[in-house]
Amino acid sequence: MIETDMPDAFSQPGSARTDIYQELASLRLTDPHTHINPHAPASTTLADLLGYHYYTELAHSAGMPKAQIEGGSIAPKELVERLVGRLSPLENTVQYSWLIEICQMFFGFEDDRLHAGNWERLYDHSESVMSSAQWPDMVLDQSNVEAVFLTNDFDDDLAGFDSDRYIPCLRTDDLVFHLADKNVRERLAACTGIELDGSLQSLRASLRALFEHFVSRGARACAISLPPSFTPTSVPDGRAQTALDAVLRGGLTSDESHRDALSRRVFWTLAELCDEFQLPFDLMIGVNRKVYPAGVFQGQDLFDSRVSLIQYRDLFNTFPDVTFPVSVLASVTNQELVSYAWIFPNVIPNGHWWYSNTPSTISHDLAARLEAVPQTKMIGYYSDAYKLEFVWPKFNMYRKVLAGVLADQFVGDRGWSIQRAVDLGRTVLQSNTDAIFPKRTAAAPQPADSSASAVQTHPVDTPVETISLADENVSQERYDEAVGDEQISELENESRGFSDDVEGDAAPTATAVDPLPVDDEIEELGLDDVELVDPTKEPTLDSDSIALGLDEEILDVGDLTLEGDGDENLPSDQQTPHIEQLRGETSFSPDDDSLQLKSDPLTGEFRFDSGEDSSDEKIETTGKSSDSDKSQPEDAEAADFSLDWLEEDNDSEKK
Amino acid sequence: MIETDMPDAFSQPGSARTDIYQELASLRLTDPHTHINPHAPASTTLADLLGYHYYTELAHSAGMPKAQIEGGSIAPKELVERLVGRLSPLENTVQYSWLIEICQMFFGFEDDRLHAGNWERLYDHSESVMSSAQWPDMVLDQSNVEAVFLTNDFDDDLAGFDSDRYIPCLRTDDLVFHLADKNVRERLAACTGIELDGSLQSLRASLRALFEHFVSRGARACAISLPPSFTPTSVPDGRAQTALDAVLRGGLTSDESHRDALSRRVFWTLAELCDEFQLPFDLMIGVNRKVYPAGVFQGQDLFDSRVSLIQYRDLFNTFPDVTFPVSVLASVTNQELVSYAWIFPNVIPNGHWWYSNTPSTISHDLAARLEAVPQTKMIGYYSDAYKLEFVWPKFNMYRKVLAGVLADQFVGDRGWSIQRAVDLGRTVLQSNTDAIFPKRTAAAPQPADSSASAVQTHPVDTPVETISLADENVSQERYDEAVGDEQISELENESRGFSDDVEGDAAPTATAVDPLPVDDEIEELGLDDVELVDPTKEPTLDSDSIALGLDEEILDVGDLTLEGDGDENLPSDQQTPHIEQLRGETSFSPDDDSLQLKSDPLTGEFRFDSGEDSSDEKIETTGKSSDSDKSQPEDAEAADFSLDWLEEDNDSEKK
Amino acid sequence: MIETDMPDAFSQPGSARTDIYQELASLRLTDPHTHINPHAPASTTLADLLGYHYYTELAHSAGMPKAQIEGGSIAPKELVERLVGRLSPLENTVQYSWLIEICQMFFGFEDDRLHAGNWERLYDHSESVMSSAQWPDMVLDQSNVEAVFLTNDFDDDLAGFDSDRYIPCLRTDDLVFHLADKNVRERLAACTGIELDGSLQSLRASLRALFEHFVSRGARACAISLPPSFTPTSVPDGRAQTALDAVLRGGLTSDESHRDALSRRVFWTLAELCDEFQLPFDLMIGVNRKVYPAGVFQGQDLFDSRVSLIQYRDLFNTFPDVTFPVSVLASVTNQELVSYAWIFPNVIPNGHWWYSNTPSTISHDLAARLEAVPQTKMIGYYSDAYKLEFVWPKFNMYRKVLAGVLADQFVGDRGWSIQRAVDLGRTVLQSNTDAIFPKRTAAAPQPADSSASAVQTHPVDTPVETISLADENVSQERYDEAVGDEQISELENESRGFSDDVEGDAAPTATAVDPLPVDDEIEELGLDDVELVDPTKEPTLDSDSIALGLDEEILDVGDLTLEGDGDENLPSDQQTPHIEQLRGETSFSPDDDSLQLKSDPLTGEFRFDSGEDSSDEKIETTGKSSDSDKSQPEDAEAADFSLDWLEEDNDSEKK
Repeated sequence: MIETDMPDAFSQPGSARTDIYQELASLRLTDPHTHINPHAPASTTLADLLGYHYYTELAHSAGMPKAQIEGGSIAPKELVERLVGRLSPLENTVQYSWLIEICQMFFGFEDDRLHAGNWERLYDHSESVMSSAQWPDMVLDQSNVEAVFLTNDFDDDLAGFDSDRYIPCLRTDDLVFHLADKNVRERLAACTGIELDGSLQSLRASLRALFEHFVSRGARACAISLPPSFTPTSVPDGRAQTALDAVLRGGLTSDESHRDALSRRVFWTLAELCDEFQLPFDLMIGVNRKVYPAGVFQGQDLFDSRVSLIQYRDLFNTFPDVTFPVSVLASVTNQELVSYAWIFPNVIPNGHWWYSNTPSTISHDLAARLEAVPQTKMIGYYSDAYKLEFVWPKFNMYRKVLAGVLADQFVGDRGWSIQRAVDLGRTVLQSNTDAIFPKRTAAAPQPADSSASAVQTHPVDTPVETISLADENVSQERYDEAVGDEQISELENESRGFSDDVEGDAAPTATAVDPLPVDDEIEELGLDDVELVDPTKEPTLDSDSIALGLDEEILDVGDLTLEGDGDENLPSDQQTPHIEQLRGETSFSPDDDSLQLKSDPLTGEFRFDSGEDSSDEKIETTGKSSDSDKSQPEDAEAADFSLDWLEEDNDSEKK
Repeated sequence: MIETDMPDAFSQPGSARTDIYQELASLRLTDPHTHINPHAPASTTLADLLGYHYYTELAHSAGMPKAQIEGGSIAPKELVERLVGRLSPLENTVQYSWLIEICQMFFGFEDDRLHAGNWERLYDHSESVMSSAQWPDMVLDQSNVEAVFLTNDFDDDLAGFDSDRYIPCLRTDDLVFHLADKNVRERLAACTGIELDGSLQSLRASLRALFEHFVSRGARACAISLPPSFTPTSVPDGRAQTALDAVLRGGLTSDESHRDALSRRVFWTLAELCDEFQLPFDLMIGVNRKVYPAGVFQGQDLFDSRVSLIQYRDLFNTFPDVTFPVSVLASVTNQELVSYAWIFPNVIPNGHWWYSNTPSTISHDLAARLEAVPQTKMIGYYSDAYKLEFVWPKFNMYRKVLAGVLADQFVGDRGWSIQRAVDLGRTVLQSNTDAIFPKRTAAAPQPADSSASAVQTHPVDTPVETISLADENVSQERYDEAVGDEQISELENESRGFSDDVEGDAAPTATAVDPLPVDDEIEELGLDDVELVDPTKEPTLDSDSIALGLDEEILDVGDLTLEGDGDENLPSDQQTPHIEQLRGETSFSPDDDSLQLKSDPLTGEFRFDSGEDSSDEKIETTGKSSDSDKSQPEDAEAADFSLDWLEEDNDSEKK
Repeated sequence: MIETDMPDAFSQPGSARTDIYQELASLRLTDPHTHINPHAPASTTLADLLGYHYYTELAHSAGMPKAQIEGGSIAPKELVERLVGRLSPLENTVQYSWLIEICQMFFGFEDDRLHAGNWERLYDHSESVMSSAQWPDMVLDQSNVEAVFLTNDFDDDLAGFDSDRYIPCLRTDDLVFHLADKNVRERLAACTGIELDGSLQSLRASLRALFEHFVSRGARACAISLPPSFTPTSVPDGRAQTALDAVLRGGLTSDESHRDALSRRVFWTLAELCDEFQLPFDLMIGVNRKVYPAGVFQGQDLFDSRVSLIQYRDLFNTFPDVTFPVSVLASVTNQELVSYAWIFPNVIPNGHWWYSNTPSTISHDLAARLEAVPQTKMIGYYSDAYKLEFVWPKFNMYRKVLAGVLADQFVGDRGWSIQRAVDLGRTVLQSNTDAIFPKRTAAAPQPADSSASAVQTHPVDTPVETISLADENVSQERYDEAVGDEQISELENESRGFSDDVEGDAAPTATAVDPLPVDDEIEELGLDDVELVDPTKEPTLDSDSIALGLDEEILDVGDLTLEGDGDENLPSDQQTPHIEQLRGETSFSPDDDSLQLKSDPLTGEFRFDSGEDSSDEKIETTGKSSDSDKSQPEDAEAADFSLDWLEEDNDSEKK
């Protein structure tokens, strides 16, 4: 019996798996979804790696008391020693294999297990390796990764990093699900300069300001995670107004029905803004938060597999020009996702999320996608990593599964050539990312083959002899349909007027304008499709607002609100630190001493204070008693923020 | 790296997969479910093939505007050119492989992709090949297919084709879900000659007339597709009467609860008639219609995987003698289907439907069936094709998956011989179809080994040394149990009387009578089973009504209704064109110029007018204003159609 | 083509599958869940084997009338002949392969099918083999099985068998779901000596008495099967009292809502008792009983796959110290189970249950578990067998699937050594059973590495060079947290007092006491975890009540109740037959003449009388008219069973 680990099935020469895998491993990738902190993207000690929630939660699940992981202050090396002593039960898991692969690849580790006899030498050696200032770039290079998408809080100033390499992405969970929290509202007001004055216009204006900021800083996606119960629908103005009133009045104590209605209203508005700004809207469907509240940090959420995409029917139909990359948490939802993507032009299966991010589940879900979803319509994988080192092993796991499916089910069962299988692999692993999340080029008008919204038609990776795709562009077609409707044009004017109010004189430079429709394309528009344009919904295409592209100036906060007051119109460079301080952070490098998982880089979404959960009452009280940054009480602001111009806006909407 | 496509795993000599596959490919098959139009069964140009909804919906999903596919009138060749230009994103899909396989097999196509450089030559060549009058028979022969089941509208006259080759099947969606639509009621009245006069008896009589017609024309199944929300239950007469009154009065505007109750009543009645006529009832469970209403024709439906067969508990229990071949749309329901078939004698897993009809899903679902459902109790596959050319590649896909499962999990994991695996494959692929959907032989009494209802016990394909099955027949046993109950006999009389009323003098020829029970079989009936016979439900076994078999005369429409009037008892050959005209069709060969998918052969179920959806109001109005074929107003009919004899019937029921 | 069966993939030398399989097959196992009758553990004729519900239900499903299987009295040999004649349709099923494997392994059968030509010789030969008095032990030895867990009715006296080999397990379905049935209440009163007097205390006391009895007899698990609709929650005393009153008054006619509330109350109390007695609580989730009431015995139940573990959220959070081995019926729930086990320390995936117990489903579910659940946290398999002969083929099926997953996905895809894969296999197949269901050693204090509750940290099977796990014990940690709370200590006193009341002088011997916490472990307890201890819930750790271990005396019934009367305090050896007679049984060897499946050994749960279902009315009536064993009317007992000392108890609870 062979007792030492051997080469795996992807390194034995001459097999289809190996050939395909090696070709895929040579591709330089963009990782379309991570939680990387661009100010501290890589690890500094093994504790950053072992502190990843997969290891803490699995160790805890296997018997390690939470207090040994999170209680009090534990030095990084101490934490690593403790965790190493608890890893043995996890050695079978694929997550453990990621860790070993990191140690082998980046630190020259030669064992296949981490234990009491070898961890300390590895710790010390890796610490010295990671101390290099070039470490993050070295990791990216070794990992063959060109860029990573971030997951930014909505009030992130997005400053101080290379946004070509660290691509911003607007995460909106707080806005949709926690606007009843005064903290969230204050953060929103602080970063946009727009107070929620009780009007739906102020809500929309503040959300719109976020999109302007993010798009101007190169954001390529809006994203949100959603509970299984969520069913997005349009909430009429009247109902939305009632809900907003109730939530502004009652905060976290306001009635569930009002909070729900406001959630759906905010979500719908975000979808409208994704449409306006041609930003893909990543939906991550199915998570139940805090199912195990006594679990370790980030090890508390689970899911309910009884979710259906039928809940998103209205959304997908209402926004045909918004691309929806969809992640599902439960593998049992994968077939629905495949089927929706097979029918709906704007639905894109996106990676393998969290509890579905294990080889056997990926293999099952991926095979179903590859055989029935157009190859241009799926994002193969994203790492979801918090530290750069994890991008490689996670993608590598995926590459092997992908190579296996391609070798078995395309080369083997269907008789494809290796090259053809590799081309398909490249499409889903590499090319689609840029096509589905197009990069906005600065200043210049957008070329036809990278226009910004809905499903991209882009060249498939095909052998030389294959014809290239037609030049006609889907988005173009849809745009044509839309602008043929006069009512849209009127609404565009209204929308432009509102934009002017918000933006003042700082009109952004046009970058991504669709060219006017060609005559024969207009001819081809049949009557069947006219029903798609819903005259009752918000306008979604507005050449002025689309004309944002890359605004070189950072977010111009305050213009609108302070205009109402007419006094302290601060220059934007003074606004920026103001936004940062809202979160109470003073620096962006908390990784070293705060490895007890209270630090932000390891924190991820939805947390203001990792030390303690913000209970409803506590936050309200705090909000009321300590008027720290914002010195004006809410009511006074609402009064100051006069309703006159807003009512003008309402009128313009009724034109 | 190998750059050209290679032989697949099923053509490499010496492997179990290849051996099994080749044996299975040599079998001459009956396809137990298609949407073939018997009057235009094969294609005439490539447009018939590329117009299949899989290609239009996938091309649309990948970015092709609907207007380029369906808007206005597009010549077949123009449509093919357009679609070919949009196929590149679909080249990975299994549906694309069907298309290439058709071109290779039937038209000598030698490439593995269809593109701008080769499509036109293929188009022209294939058009000349398909122009042969023998083309449909040539396709069937080359495909090794003996017969195909059809999907007939309930008012199809079933005339003008060879019903041994094109086997009728009564599709009942319209009856169950759209009886509130005046159009449907008019079609029903027109083809049966029975007006819905407001009585439940008239409803039942008209449905029964359909069964008589279909069975007399060789129909071997009744079929319906069902939404995930549907839960069939028995609706008592009182509630059913209220519902029928409301629906006849309100039509499409009648209350949802009444329409639902009527749906369930009609469905239940159909099940009773399946029982009476020993017709298997194909249930296709799970489809949500028009989830994406802006999608291309037939590319608008999806599903909700949150469905359970527990919803069919009452149905399966109430009708032990009805065979229910069940298709599920979601693979996640497959395990329930396997388990129900493992326990319920009358539940049969049936093929791999639509969104589950892809190799990885079939492989998963099939393996689960083969290891736990008796081999005689599953229908391996049906093509669901609209044109004969698709029968081969779809079955071929299935044969490869089947050969793979047999080679890996039976020969490999369980040590079966190749021959034994092939025998199992033959049983599920070929033998079961005839056993589960038995053919009715004309005039002669039905032989014991092919009696008509519930699960068939039939010889399994086994090596020579294996004993044959016992001769005792399940249906026989059940029949014995039933006729032992005196109450049944009384109800039989009532039922027979009702039949007489309906059928007048045209009593059908007996063909499929079960022989009387043998004594020792009666002895074996224990008390335990008596509870199966529910005296409150409709009689389901009636030797007279079972004695239908092959009625050589076509449907005798009008007898009953017109009997009420007592005047214009037209001969049946004059009725037939009347039925055809109801649908507004003048011929059955619309494939050539109507490839914009408005034509009927490509249409399938639920459509009266493919150009525009029939909105509720529109249909009601139309129905009221243009009393085209039917000159009598509804109320007048109800009055004429006197209640006297119905009350007599009610009395006889109370004996 | 090869026509004879061949060696399977697990007996071809040199492959990873074969190497791994052979190592796994050499392990001596404990089967952690069966329905073996310890008084007749093995079969006596082939009828015992063919009478297993898998064969009767599959034969029935394939067309064999129920009356041929169950009606009247059928001699064993006659039954076998009948069934053999009906087995042909089942030859593809994995269940059939179990049967053939049994015949080959134990009776020298050399064919691969059972048919009319060979069954009788096999019958006669096997009968003589099985007639040996040593047969059960021979089967265990040949099967390499050391011990099997039983499934005992709550009123089983657990006497007369070797409980080291046949390990008791308390099955609680009747208590939770059928307490409204007077029969069940009478059985409970009879075996505990505690009448339900209308107080919640009497309910709890009687349940607690069961735990004392079972634990004292070496029980290693409490178990229950649960319908998909069940959602356990804590029911407050007030609501529980109302429910109990209603159910005691109305019995089976009491309102559904009251019966539900009482079910949840009883279930919650069982969980509390599992906590107190450190007994794992096996949850078998998802079964719908009697979906096919006309099915053969034990062939009537199915499931609804629409179940979610979110329904168990409160339970898993409230009882962190109770280990919950969870079986799910539907494979679509497996991913939730994997994810819950990955996060919750007290959730353990447990085997592959019933409709999921087939190779392709096991393979799918197992792969998902092995890649993401800590290896120490899963029970690989249990046989669920009713007769010992089935343990081997069922485990063998699992071993092959396990060897396949390990060879393909660990050795192949991940490059593991064979040895490492075998170690993982051994852990899930063998070692975890003893760790998760720890054996209680008599009299001596429990060693630290086998303490009794929650998830066990135990040495993983690892190659020699690997470090051993830390000695710190999870349960120990949790215990430490708990005893730090003063309120717990008070409640412990109360609980101990209540125990005294119940047990009188018969205090059990301490066996499984946790040692006191080590100082540095206490230090490590952070504040974060304190919230886990819910002061409102029942005390769960009580050193006196834990100190039960192996009580050599059998259950002391009657003490408490009869103490109320103050007269007939019988010695325990006179109580034992009394309990047995409650079930109306006079012996434990009914296998020979009662093969028509009315006998208890084949019966399993939920049945008082297998000949006829106990309808609601019938039972109530019977209960009232025939006061057979219990001569005191219920009301009188309630009065006698004075409330005084119970109120004292309430007081002590309020201290």
